[in-house]
Amino acid sequence: MSLPIDAPPFSWRKKEWEKDLKVHDWITSYHHVQESDEKAFFDVILLGVPLSRSSISASGASEFPNAFRRSWEGFTTYNLEEEVDLRNLSVLDIGNVKMHVTDVALCHQHIKEAMQGLSALYPDSFIASIGGDHSITAMLVKGLKAANSKETIGILQLDTHLDLRDTKTDGPTNGTPIRQLIEAGAVKGENVHNIGLHGFFNAPSLVEYARDCGLNYTTLKKARMKGIKETVQDALKDLENRVDRIYLTVDMDVLDIACAPGVPASTPGGMRTEELLEAVFEAGLHPKVKAMDIVCLDPLKDTAVQTTVKAGTHVFLSFMTGLLKRIKR
Amino acid sequence: MSLPIDAPPFSWRKKEWEKDLKVHDWITSYHHVQESDEKAFFDVILLGVPLSRSSISASGASEFPNAFRRSWEGFTTYNLEEEVDLRNLSVLDIGNVKMHVTDVALCHQHIKEAMQGLSALYPDSFIASIGGDHSITAMLVKGLKAANSKETIGILQLDTHLDLRDTKTDGPTNGTPIRQLIEAGAVKGENVHNIGLHGFFNAPSLVEYARDCGLNYTTLKKARMKGIKETVQDALKDLENRVDRIYLTVDMDVLDIACAPGVPASTPGGMRTEELLEAVFEAGLHPKVKAMDIVCLDPLKDTAVQTTVKAGTHVFLSFMTGLLKRIKR
Amino acid sequence: MSLPIDAPPFSWRKKEWEKDLKVHDWITSYHHVQESDEKAFFDVILLGVPLSRSSISASGASEFPNAFRRSWEGFTTYNLEEEVDLRNLSVLDIGNVKMHVTDVALCHQHIKEAMQGLSALYPDSFIASIGGDHSITAMLVKGLKAANSKETIGILQLDTHLDLRDTKTDGPTNGTPIRQLIEAGAVKGENVHNIGLHGFFNAPSLVEYARDCGLNYTTLKKARMKGIKETVQDALKDLENRVDRIYLTVDMDVLDIACAPGVPASTPGGMRTEELLEAVFEAGLHPKVKAMDIVCLDPLKDTAVQTTVKAGTHVFLSFMTGLLKRIKR
Amino acid sequence: MSLPIDAPPFSWRKKEWEKDLKVHDWITSYHHVQESDEKAFFDVILLGVPLSRSSISASGASEFPNAFRRSWEGFTTYNLEEEVDLRNLSVLDIGNVKMHVTDVALCHQHIKEAMQGLSALYPDSFIASIGGDHSITAMLVKGLKAANSKETIGILQLDTHLDLRDTKTDGPTNGTPIRQLIEAGAVKGENVHNIGLHGFFNAPSLVEYARDCGLNYTTLKKARMKGIKETVQDALKDLENRVDRIYLTVDMDVLDIACAPGVPASTPGGMRTEELLEAVFEAGLHPKVKAMDIVCLDPLKDTAVQTTVKAGTHVFLSFMTGLLKRIKR
Amino acid sequence: MSLPIDAPPFSWRKKEWEKDLKVHDWITSYHHVQESDEKAFFDVILLGVPLSRSSISASGASEFPNAFRRSWEGFTTYNLEEEVDLRNLSVLDIGNVKMHVTDVALCHQHIKEAMQGLSALYPDSFIASIGGDHSITAMLVKGLKAANSKETIGILQLDTHLDLRDTKTDGPTNGTPIRQLIEAGAVKGENVHNIGLHGFFNAPSLVEYARDCGLNYTTLKKARMKGIKETVQDALKDLENRVDRIYLTVDMDVLDIACAPGVPASTPGGMRTEELLEAVFEAGLHPKVKAMDIVCLDPLKDTAVQTTVKAGTHVFLSFMTGLLKRIKR
Amino acid sequence: MSLPIDAPPFSWRKKEWEKDLKVHDWITSYHHVQESDEKAFFDVILLGVPLSRSSISASGASEFPNAFRRSWEGFTTYNLEEEVDLRNLSVLDIGNVKMHVTDVALCHQHIKEAMQGLSALYPDSFIASIGGDHSITAMLVKGLKAANSKETIGILQLDTHLDLRDTKTDGPTNGTPIRQLIEAGAVKGENVHNIGLHGFFNAPSLVEYARDCGLNYTTLKKARMKGIKETVQDALKDLENRVDRIYLTVDMDVLDIACAPGVPASTPGGMRTEELLEAVFEAGLHPKVKAMDIVCLDPLKDTAVQTTVKAGTHVFLSFMTGLLKRIKR
Repeated sequence: MSLPIDAPPFSWRKKEWEKDLKVHDWITSYHHVQESDEKAFFDVILLGVPLSRSSISASGASEFPNAFRRSWEGFTTYNLEEEVDLRNLSVLDIGNVKMHVTDVALCHQHIKEAMQGLSALYPDSFIASIGGDHSITAMLVKGLKAANSKETIGILQLDTHLDLRDTKTDGPTNGTPIRQLIEAGAVKGENVHNIGLHGFFNAPSLVEYARDCGLNYTTLKKARMKGIKETVQDALKDLENRVDRIYLTVDMDVLDIACAPGVPASTPGGMRTEELLEAVFEAGLHPKVKAMDIVCLDPLKDTAVQTTVKAGTHVFLSFMTGLLKRIKR
Repeated sequence: MSLPIDAPPFSWRKKEWEKDLKVHDWITSYHHVQESDEKAFFDVILLGVPLSRSSISASGASEFPNAFRRSWEGFTTYNLEEEVDLRNLSVLDIGNVKMHVTDVALCHQHIKEAMQGLSALYPDSFIASIGGDHSITAMLVKGLKAANSKETIGILQLDTHLDLRDTKTDGPTNGTPIRQLIEAGAVKGENVHNIGLHGFFNAPSLVEYARDCGLNYTTLKKARMKGIKETVQDALKDLENRVDRIYLTVDMDVLDIACAPGVPASTPGGMRTEELLEAVFEAGLHPKVKAMDIVCLDPLKDTAVQTTVKAGTHVFLSFMTGLLKRIKR
Repeated sequence: MSLPIDAPPFSWRKKEWEKDLKVHDWITSYHHVQESDEKAFFDVILLGVPLSRSSISASGASEFPNAFRRSWEGFTTYNLEEEVDLRNLSVLDIGNVKMHVTDVALCHQHIKEAMQGLSALYPDSFIASIGGDHSITAMLVKGLKAANSKETIGILQLDTHLDLRDTKTDGPTNGTPIRQLIEAGAVKGENVHNIGLHGFFNAPSLVEYARDCGLNYTTLKKARMKGIKETVQDALKDLENRVDRIYLTVDMDVLDIACAPGVPASTPGGMRTEELLEAVFEAGLHPKVKAMDIVCLDPLKDTAVQTTVKAGTHVFLSFMTGLLKRIKR
Repeated sequence: MSLPIDAPPFSWRKKEWEKDLKVHDWITSYHHVQESDEKAFFDVILLGVPLSRSSISASGASEFPNAFRRSWEGFTTYNLEEEVDLRNLSVLDIGNVKMHVTDVALCHQHIKEAMQGLSALYPDSFIASIGGDHSITAMLVKGLKAANSKETIGILQLDTHLDLRDTKTDGPTNGTPIRQLIEAGAVKGENVHNIGLHGFFNAPSLVEYARDCGLNYTTLKKARMKGIKETVQDALKDLENRVDRIYLTVDMDVLDIACAPGVPASTPGGMRTEELLEAVFEAGLHPKVKAMDIVCLDPLKDTAVQTTVKAGTHVFLSFMTGLLKRIKR
Repeated sequence: MSLPIDAPPFSWRKKEWEKDLKVHDWITSYHHVQESDEKAFFDVILLGVPLSRSSISASGASEFPNAFRRSWEGFTTYNLEEEVDLRNLSVLDIGNVKMHVTDVALCHQHIKEAMQGLSALYPDSFIASIGGDHSITAMLVKGLKAANSKETIGILQLDTHLDLRDTKTDGPTNGTPIRQLIEAGAVKGENVHNIGLHGFFNAPSLVEYARDCGLNYTTLKKARMKGIKETVQDALKDLENRVDRIYLTVDMDVLDIACAPGVPASTPGGMRTEELLEAVFEAGLHPKVKAMDIVCLDPLKDTAVQTTVKAGTHVFLSFMTGLLKRIKR
Repeated sequence: MSLPIDAPPFSWRKKEWEKDLKVHDWITSYHHVQESDEKAFFDVILLGVPLSRSSISASGASEFPNAFRRSWEGFTTYNLEEEVDLRNLSVLDIGNVKMHVTDVALCHQHIKEAMQGLSALYPDSFIASIGGDHSITAMLVKGLKAANSKETIGILQLDTHLDLRDTKTDGPTNGTPIRQLIEAGAVKGENVHNIGLHGFFNAPSLVEYARDCGLNYTTLKKARMKGIKETVQDALKDLENRVDRIYLTVDMDVLDIACAPGVPASTPGGMRTEELLEAVFEAGLHPKVKAMDIVCLDPLKDTAVQTTVKAGTHVFLSFMTGLLKRIKR
C-alpha cells in the first residue's frame, strides 16, 4: 500500500540511527523494551512522579511528567554550546509511579518503593525523577537511602523556599520534604545546600530551624555576587567531603515569575532561566551527584507557547549535558 | 477624624437596614455573630467545603467557596422576575470545613461531622454546602443521615454524569458519591433521580449499575422534550411519596461547556444556564428539599469576567428564591 | 511601477461600485468627503462616542468605536436571510466626539452638542451612536431633544439593568442615564420600555422608582414566553401612540455572559445573541425609531477571536437591515 | 518486576474487550494492524487531513487531526441517549495524509489520491476525513468521484458560508471548494444542500452564483422555524432521488462564536452545539451518506478547557451514532 | 461549638504575636483600631488611592490598592537576604481615599486633602500611597507640601517617562504630574531626579522642557553602566543637600514589559525586577525620603499567576526593608 | 462646521512639522505620495512581506507587517539615550508584497521581484523588510543580488537556529533560507555570521553543514562572555573586508521565550530584549549594512499587552537609530 499517508506518530518501529535525533527518538520508552532488554545497562533511568494532591495550593503539577514527554519533540539531542550529543547517554523512561486518587499516603509509599526498587535494579544508573510537587523529594530520597543503607546522602537544592515546614501542621506536603528527611535521619542538616533563597518567602521559624540544624544556604543576591557557577561548585565541594552520594532537587519556583508563569509559587526577583541552566549543568558534572528531581511545575497554568514546560525540559537536558561530560570525559 | 477616606471593605459595623442590599450585606458571617446569637434560628446555614484533592483530575474547585463569597457583591438580594427579596430569608455563613493537606480521609470525615453537627444544631434550617468536588456529596448526605437516622433520604441530581464509579478503583473521588451512598445503605437507588445525562460521558457499566439498582434518570434530550421544569416537578413528585427528605446536588458540569468554561468536565451539548436556573428554582419550591450542594466549579480555570463563578452564584440565588416562596407563601 | 506590491490598506481611491462590498467599503468616512459633499443627504449618520471614564467600574468601552470600525472588514453588506443589501442605505461615519481626559462633564457636554449639531445638520437622517458606556445615552437624548424641542421622545431600552440610579451618589454614570432623562423632563417614565431585566441585578429602590414614574418593563422570562419579536412590537406599538420619536438604546450587557465575555456587566441567564439580533431588527422596521446607541462593550476584555466585538457589529447591521426594509419598502 | 509503576500510556498491547471503552481504545490505529489485517473489513475509515496553508487567513486547523485524537480519552463509546455502543462499529484510523510544507498543489493532490486509494481499497466502508481547512473538501470529493466514476454525488453542507469563491482570485482555498466541484463537473449545483447560512457573511455575487447553478440553501432562521432535524431530513430526501452517494461536509464555523471560540470564522447568531449534534445524527441515519468531513477548527485558538475541540469530536461521535443505527438496525 | 470549621478569613480577633507572620497579619487595618488607638504612633501610614479615570488610556489601576492588599498573604514579613523582620515597623492601613465616579477634580481634591490631613495627624510617620495612576502623585505631593509649607521637597522618580505633559491639553492626567508640581511651584525642576528613561517613549518637547527647568535624568543604559544602586545613591546625595524632604514615586512602567505584563505602558528594554527592587531598597535607607507612591499597575491586565501584582507588592516590601534598616539602625 | 468631533484617525492631510512626532506620523505611506514624489529620494524603504504559509508549523507571522504598523502610535521618533530624532531619516512605507493564497512559489517569486525592483528604483536607499517567516530571507537576498549582480553579499544573522535545512525535505521553508542562498551561490558560507545559537535547537547535521561551508557562528554563551556589542562589531569587521554589502536578518526567536511569548520558536535561555536592541543598534552603525529583515513574529500568539510586537518594533527603531548616526555623522 503506497498511499501518501504519514506513518502514525507513535509507531513502534526500529528507528534508524540517524545523524539527527530529537529527544523523543533518543530516550527509550519502557514499553518498547523487550523483557530480555530490561536487564541491560542504562546511564539514566527516568521516572515520572505525577503527584500534586499533596500540594498546599491546588496544583496541576501532576500533569508535568506527561507534558515533559510531549515537549521532547521540540529539542534535539545535540548541545551546540558544549558540542556534545546526548545520544551518547542511554536513557530508559520507565513510566510513571502508580498513584491513588484519594490515598495520599499510599501515593507517597509507592514513590519510595519505586525509587528503592529502581535503585536496586539499576544500581549504577543515574535516576532522574520528574514531579509532581516537592513532597515527592522526601520519598525519593528515602527510597534512595533504603536501597543504599550504608551510604550518607547530601542534598543540593535550587529553590526559593527552604521547605522545612513541620509535617504536624498539614502532613507531608510540598512545604516539608527537607525537614522530613532531616527528622527521619535520612539526611543531616549540614549536608543540605540550598541556593536561591531571596525576598519575603520564608518564615523566620523556618530560617531558625535551618540554622539550628546546620543547613547551608546561599541567598540569590550572594550567589550572584560570587557567580552562580562558583556558588554551585563550592556547595558541591563542601558536600563531596562529607557524603557518599549527592541528590539534586530543582524546585522550578526558584525561577523569576516572569520566566516561569507556570509555577504559581515562583516570585518576582528570582533566578533568570540562563542562570538556572548554568547551575544544573555544573551539578551534572560532579561525580557524586547520583539522582535528581524537577518539581512544582504546573503545565495547566503555563502560557500558550509553553514557556515554563520548555524551561523545565531544558533544565533536564542541561543537567544531562553535564552528566555526559562527567561520564564520557 | 473626618478625612475623605472610605470605610474599610469588611468592617464589622451594624448595617443599616437599607432598602437596597447586596448579597454580601444580607448573609450573616459567623464571626460577626455573638455567642448568644449562635442559638438564633436561621432559615439557611451556608457551609463552604473547600476540598478538591479527591478529584480525579487536578482541580482548583477547592477555591470556589471563597470565590463564591467574593462574587456576592455583584448581586442584589432582589429577584426581579419573581418579585421577592431574599432578605426575608435569614442565612448564616458558618465558614469552611477544616481541611487537611494530605489526609483526604480526614477531610472527608470532617465534612461528615460538620454536616451532622450542623443538622443537630440547626434542625429546622436548610443547609447549603458549596464545594469542592463531587466527592463531598457522599459525606454530606452521610452526615445528614447520621443526624436524622430514622428518616429516608432521596436525591435529585443535576449532572452530566452518573457518579457511580466503584471506590475500589481510586478511593472515594468525585466519580463515586452516589454509589458510595447506595452501597452504604444511606440512600436507595430508586430514590435517586438524575437529570441532565447526554452524549458519551458515562460508561455502560455505570449505566448498567444504575439500572440494576433502580436509579432513575432522564436524559437532557428527553427533559427538553417534556420541559425542564416539568421534568424536575415529576422527579420531585416521585420522590415525595417515598422519602422523608430530599437532597439536591448540582454538579456544575451539567452545563454546556460554552456556558461553563470554568468546569473542565462540562461538555458540548449540555444545559444552557437559563435551563439550570429554572431547574433549581423548581427544586427550591418543594417542601421536602432540605439540603443542597453545588460542586465541581474550578474558579482557577474561569474566564477573566468570571463567567462560571457568576453562574454558580446565580444557581444558589435562584434556588434561594424558590425556597423563599416555599417558606413564606 | 508594476511591482507585485499590494495597494496600501487605507488608500483614498474611488471604489469601483462592485457587486460585492464589505462594510468598510460601504460606509463613507468623513475625511474622504469633500466639503461640498458634506451637505449631501445620508440615510444614516454614524457617531463614535469613546467615553468610559464615567463608568462605575474600570472600563475600556471607550475603545469600542474604533474596534467596531476595524471589525467591518469581516462583514459583507448583504443580509442573506432578508435578501437585502445595505449598500442601498447611505451612511456617513462622522468620526468620534472629542473627549477630554479628566473633565468628564466637558465630555458629556460635547456628546450633547455633537448630537444636537448633527440633528440640526442632518434632520432627516437616522443617527447611530456607538459607545462608550451607558452614561452617554443621557447626553445623546438630551442633544436630540434640544434639536427637536417641540417633539416628545420615547425610549426602547434593551438592558439587564434599569439604569435608574441617582446622580447624587456618583454623578452621571453608566448607572444613571434613564433617571437623568426622566428628572430633566426630557423623557417621561411612561414613555420608556425596558426589555431584558432578569435575576438579581436591580436593587428594589430602583424598581420602586421605575414603578413610581410609570416606566414599563418586561422581564426576559416574560419576553421569552410571549416571543422576543412580539414583545418588541408591543412596546413599539405602545410608544407610537404617545411619542413623536423613539430612541433605541442597546446595552450589550443584556446578553448572556457566555455570549458576551467582553461585557463585564453581562450576566448568567441573559439573552442569547440570536434573540438580540431579532429584537433590534424589529426596532429597525418601525418608522418612529430615529436614533440608537450601542453601549458598554469593552473590547479590551474580549476573547482572542473577538466574540463580543463581532456581536456588537452584528447588532448594528441587523438594525440597519430593519431600517433599510422600513425606508425602501 | 512489580514496581508500582503505571503501564506506559501508548503501549501496544491487546486490549481486553472490556465492558467500558474509551474512544481511543475502540478505534484501531493503523500501525497496530498487521499486514494481513489490512484487508479486513472496517465499517469506517478515518483519515486525518492536516492542511491549513490553503486557508485565506492564518490558520492552525492543520493541528486538529491530532488534537481530535488526543481528545478521545475524554469520551466513552456509549451514547446514553440513543442507548447504543459505538464499539459495534469497526473503525480504522489510517493516519494523516502526507503534506508538503511549501507545495500546496502537491498537498491537494495527495488528499485526492488518498481518498481515491482508500475508496478503492475499502469500497464498502464509510470514510470520515478530519481537516484541515475547507479546501480539502474539493479534493476529497474529487477522490471519491474518481474511485466511483459512474456514480453521481450530492453534498449536504453545514456551513455559515457558501464557499463558492472563484479559484482565479487566490487559488483553491477554504473559500472555494463547492465551486471547484461544480466547475469540475464533479457535483451539480442542484445536488448541493447548504444549511446554516445567516447574517452578513456571504457576498451577493456568491449568492447569485448559487442561484444560477441551482444550489439549494436553507438559512438558519428558516431551518429553526421548520426544525433543524426536519430541515436535514428534507434535504436528504431531495438528494436521495437524484444522486447515488451523499457527502456530508461540516464546516465548524456554522456554530455560534460563543460555542466555537476555536473557529475564527464562526459568527454571532450561528447554530448552537446541540442543534449541530442533532443535524449530524440525522445525516448519519441516511443510507446514501457515504463519506464526511469536519473542517476549519483551529485548536491553537481554543480555550484552556478545549471547548471547540470537544465540540468537534462530539460532532464525529454523534454522526457515528446515526451511522451505527443505520447499519445495525 | 467545636465543629471542624475554620475561623472565617477576615475575623477581628487579637492575633497572637507569633514567630511567623504574613504581611496581612502584620499591617494593622484601620477598622480594627480603637478610637483611642488612633492617636498611637505608627512608623508607616498606608493609603490606597484607587483613581484611574484620569489615565490617558483606559486603565484598571484603580483596582490595584485592593489587589495589593489581597496579595499580602503570599509574603512573610521576614526579609531573608537582609535578615530583618518588617514586624519591627508598625504600619497602619488607613484605607482608600474616597472617590467620585464622574468628578475627577473632586477625586484629585480628596487625594490632596487625605495626604495633607494624614501628614498633620501623623507628622512623624512615613506615608506610602498605593495608586491608581500617576496623576495622583501631583496631588499627594501638593498635600504633603500644604502640611509642611516651609519645607522644600525633592522627587526621586523611577519611570520610563518624564510625565511632563502640559495640563492644558487633557487636564491633570497620568502624563502630567511632575509638570504640575513644577508649575505650581511645589517642587523645583532641579530637585527632581528621574531614573529609568530609555528608548522612544518621550517626545522631544518634553525632554526640552526637562532641560529648560533643570530636571535631572539618568537613562537606563547609563544607570546600568554606573550601577543601579550607585545611581540611586548619587541622586539622593544630590537631593539631600538641597531639599528638606524627598518623595519617591515608582511608576511600575519602568519595568520591562516581560516583567510587568500588567502595566500596559511598560516597554521592551526596561528594568528587570531585581534592578527595581535594589533601587527602592536604596531609597528606603535614606533618612530624607519621607513618602512614596507606587502607580500605574493595572491588575485587570495581569497574568493568571499575578506576575505584576506580586512585583508591585515586592517593591513596597523592599522599600520597607530599607526603611526599617534606616530607622532601627 | 465646528462640532466637538475629532478629526478622523487616518486623514490624508498635511501634517504640521511638529516638535513631537509619533512613528506613524513620521513614516510616509506610499498611498499618500504623489506620482511625482515617487522618484524622490528616501533614506529607507520599508516593505511588508506577509507570508507565513511557508512556515513549518502553523504560523500567523503573516500578520506582523500590519501589527507592526499599528504599533507605531506607541513610539515617538526621539531616541532619548542616543539623543537623536529619527525624523532626520526619510522613510517610505511601500506597502506589502502581493501574496497568493495557495501558490507559495509565486509568493516567493513576488518577494524576490519586489526586492529586485525596489533596489533598482531606490539604489541608494536602505531597504527594511518586515516578515513573515524566515523563508522570505532567501528571496529578499536573491532579489538584492539580482539588482546588484557584481557585488558580493554577506549576512549577519541573529537567530537561535542555523536555518540550514535542505529544501529537498519540505521545500523552501523558514528552516532553509541560509542554505538556499549558499547553494544558489548568492552568498558564500564564510560570509555568514550567526550570533545567538545555544541549547538543543540545532541538529548535528546542520552544524556539520555549517562547518563544511565555513559558516561562522558565535554561541550566546560566548557572545555574552565577549560582550554582545563586541561580538557584533567583530563579525562586521570580519565581513567588511570580504563583501560589498551586508544583509542583517533578525529572527525574533533569538529572544528568550519569556521576552517573546509571540514567537513560538523562541526558547528558554535566549537573548534578553536589551541585548538584542544593543546588537541591532551596532549593526545599524556599520556603513556596509544595506538591508535588513525582521522575521518569525506571530502577533496572533502575543500577550494582551503585545509584549512581542512592541519588542519587534523597537528592534526596527533601534536599528534605525544606528543607521541615522551612521548617515548623519
